Amino acid sequence: MAEPSGAGDSIPLECPGLDTAAGEEFLQEVFQILLEEGVRKSTDVTQKVCEWKEPQELRDLLDLELRSDGEGRERLLQRCRDVLRFSVRTGHPRFFNQLFSGLDHHALAGRFLTETLNTSPYTYEVAPVLVLMEEQVLAKLRELVGWSSGDGIFAPGGSMSNMLAMNVARFRRFPESRSRGNWDLPRLGLFASQESHYSILKGAALLGIGTDNVHLVRTDERGKMIPEELEKEIQRVKAEHPPIPPDPSLIPPRARSPSLCVPRVAPLSWAPSTRWTPSPTSVPATGCGCMWTADSVTWNPHKLLMVGLQCSAFLLRDSSGLLQRCHGVGASYLFQRDKFYDVSLDTGDKSPQCGRRADGLKLWILWKAVGTRGLAQRVERAFAASRYLLEQVKRREGFQLVMEPEFINLCFWFIPPSLRGQENSPQFWDKLGKVAPAIKEKMIRRGSMMVGYQPQGSHVNFFRQIITNPAVTRQDLDFFLDEIQELGWDL
Amino acid sequence: MAEPSGAGDSIPLECPGLDTAAGEEFLQEVFQILLEEGVRKSTDVTQKVCEWKEPQELRDLLDLELRSDGEGRERLLQRCRDVLRFSVRTGHPRFFNQLFSGLDHHALAGRFLTETLNTSPYTYEVAPVLVLMEEQVLAKLRELVGWSSGDGIFAPGGSMSNMLAMNVARFRRFPESRSRGNWDLPRLGLFASQESHYSILKGAALLGIGTDNVHLVRTDERGKMIPEELEKEIQRVKAEHPPIPPDPSLIPPRARSPSLCVPRVAPLSWAPSTRWTPSPTSVPATGCGCMWTADSVTWNPHKLLMVGLQCSAFLLRDSSGLLQRCHGVGASYLFQRDKFYDVSLDTGDKSPQCGRRADGLKLWILWKAVGTRGLAQRVERAFAASRYLLEQVKRREGFQLVMEPEFINLCFWFIPPSLRGQENSPQFWDKLGKVAPAIKEKMIRRGSMMVGYQPQGSHVNFFRQIITNPAVTRQDLDFFLDEIQELGWDL
Repeated sequence: MAEPSGAGDSIPLECPGLDTAAGEEFLQEVFQILLEEGVRKSTDVTQKVCEWKEPQELRDLLDLELRSDGEGRERLLQRCRDVLRFSVRTGHPRFFNQLFSGLDHHALAGRFLTETLNTSPYTYEVAPVLVLMEEQVLAKLRELVGWSSGDGIFAPGGSMSNMLAMNVARFRRFPESRSRGNWDLPRLGLFASQESHYSILKGAALLGIGTDNVHLVRTDERGKMIPEELEKEIQRVKAEHPPIPPDPSLIPPRARSPSLCVPRVAPLSWAPSTRWTPSPTSVPATGCGCMWTADSVTWNPHKLLMVGLQCSAFLLRDSSGLLQRCHGVGASYLFQRDKFYDVSLDTGDKSPQCGRRADGLKLWILWKAVGTRGLAQRVERAFAASRYLLEQVKRREGFQLVMEPEFINLCFWFIPPSLRGQENSPQFWDKLGKVAPAIKEKMIRRGSMMVGYQPQGSHVNFFRQIITNPAVTRQDLDFFLDEIQELGWDL
Repeated sequence: MAEPSGAGDSIPLECPGLDTAAGEEFLQEVFQILLEEGVRKSTDVTQKVCEWKEPQELRDLLDLELRSDGEGRERLLQRCRDVLRFSVRTGHPRFFNQLFSGLDHHALAGRFLTETLNTSPYTYEVAPVLVLMEEQVLAKLRELVGWSSGDGIFAPGGSMSNMLAMNVARFRRFPESRSRGNWDLPRLGLFASQESHYSILKGAALLGIGTDNVHLVRTDERGKMIPEELEKEIQRVKAEHPPIPPDPSLIPPRARSPSLCVPRVAPLSWAPSTRWTPSPTSVPATGCGCMWTADSVTWNPHKLLMVGLQCSAFLLRDSSGLLQRCHGVGASYLFQRDKFYDVSLDTGDKSPQCGRRADGLKLWILWKAVGTRGLAQRVERAFAASRYLLEQVKRREGFQLVMEPEFINLCFWFIPPSLRGQENSPQFWDKLGKVAPAIKEKMIRRGSMMVGYQPQGSHVNFFRQIITNPAVTRQDLDFFLDEIQELGWDL
């Protein structure tokens, strides 16, 4: 038997090689730091959202280098404090930069639980609780989509869920693709909204379909795919590359979604969370109408439901075992068929992953804590916050909507006094496009708040505000607009 | 603007919609439960490894259903206790069932930190500390592989890392595959050891290459790929499907790995961790020789280094930006080019994922805590434990090695007294194949320990023991063999 060095035999095996008492003490101390610096300060509106450091300065401050010798407890605790201090506080009521903003304590408790359990829900044997919980949560999510049966799996993020959807769609129409690859298939076409999420392109590249075979369909002024344009595009592609069977299953679920004002945010991956609301009949207007005709849905509770990164459910209407047939290979070291329990509970082979995180527990705990009603209230509040902000934006001088919002995101420009009234000058849009990045830089350096900006088609850089965190108050929203106004005043 | 129901306007936005004080109190209580039930008991050798329940019984016990109303604090705390009670204790010194066994307190602290930060290391803007940490950890891992430069990214598990490797290999040889898909490419062949991990097949299916185009190359009696067989297989495939360019880059890194006795364990994904040992010159014998010629390496510190699920580094020798060119699409809402800092730090576009977990922090903290030296000692100890167990297996009556181990895994049969001396009877192997599953069932029902079994080629079910957890003592190893003997005695 090989050995890495000659020293091995001198290692005494009588005693454990881990000091659990010291370890528990360390964990206890880290937890108090976490609670104070990571949770309390992180959600405290009087604290800064971030403490900006230039990369090289931060490298030096953190002393990142990994050395031969370990460090003492005090040094390590200080490192934990430093990590928290120089990280962005995504749970802060004035962090609006990402869709996963906010901190829910119940969900965080679920995440700590998950980390402590440290197992993969691929077999019932090693994750009995987590496997059953995943089964339950997926069934409940499907129920809200409107499916009384079906299948599903958690994936590492919405982009991966979308890729699974594309792969399963290909497999359903061409089961031979799994064994023979794309070569024996006609050239596949993927029809998606021109406002679809970038994971469609990434997935096409990864799946060997090719980004050129993603056909982006024109949208209307509100970013919604135009059905006639889809039909036209299908006919055009068919004529170019016969024989192409543009099976509707190859239109990714999201492709048919009515777009948000900035639909690259991946509407369908977070819009389903509006299903929590008590009046489902009004939901179609918010972006989920296509769910009723889709074969699969990607739902990311780590966004609007604030469960924490990552929690992305890939839901399928199919209950014939398509997912297992598409991805399963039945590794004999893991998915033994001669186990003493019902091996249909060993669901891991439905995924292209092997070890997989248990992303259902945190959602389950949150749901138990606040109930469907509590989740619905959060969604209602998100809408109320957006409505309030919309009114303010319309009322304030210098703020201009990119378009009327349909969902809870609000896209607008701030026009500094120096540019007002010059809307017809040739440099106006060029100059306006530099305003959002300049304001963004100032807010990060100040640490007062964070919000995203982006250009979109012919629109130059605008702010994109999406309020999902129920901790956000009217005062925060007023501050948000005041701060943009103040930071952009002299530009 | 749409709204989910008419009730929205009555929601008061003056106060935060989250009770942070109650939330912090809940977290504090959950943490004490976690520390007691999840950490202390989980690592206490006098406790059971698992408490087996039939699926329906467990469903009832857990009361999984998700209802309209939320629950009170005491009920929720009890739920957390139940989750811990009925889950398998993967940190227990007698849990040998998976490669991610063991619990390191420093790494767990790093995981809690990561969950509290709740951000994605895709941009420096929202994850400055985590982006720099990932940069540092990946550079250090590459250094141990022997590369002074290169690239890399963390992926959600070893299987995904392998798929990235396959995709990047395809892209390097055929950059047009990204835009045009596989159709304009010659039929690609993927040559892998017949003992390679099942993610190679899963990846071939996902990438549109097809499982039929994975050519499994014969191995010797020790499970190592036979170089002459690889050459023969390449020639055979070439002759069948001209013109095929079997670019060596399409041989996945792991494919060339010398096999372990059960190489489906994914040798290269955990064997690199032996690079910690002070005598790297002896490492090739343990399975990493091919790293010096590979273009990429998948390294899973969540296995032998006990960092916790998941931590999988996909490392590339290339430093020309191949990874970015292969996967990047430059989403304008996330990877703005007009930011005020060096946007080469916005590394997220190198991955097919969008939001991505920050898997480097837990490894960084562990490394800081024990140093390279401490990590090396753990590897040494794993070898020492395997050597001890090997001696015992050889010494004990009724235990029979499947083959001499090369690495730290030990594969053996236990032959119950009723079968001894009948090795030449026609039913011997059939009967022996039922022994490991029967013993496994008994140990799970008893909760005394957990270990994996599997068949492999012509070998019927055998036990596969891999000791990575430094908390495992000689007494645990003696118990392990005693227990198998006791449980299998009457079979």
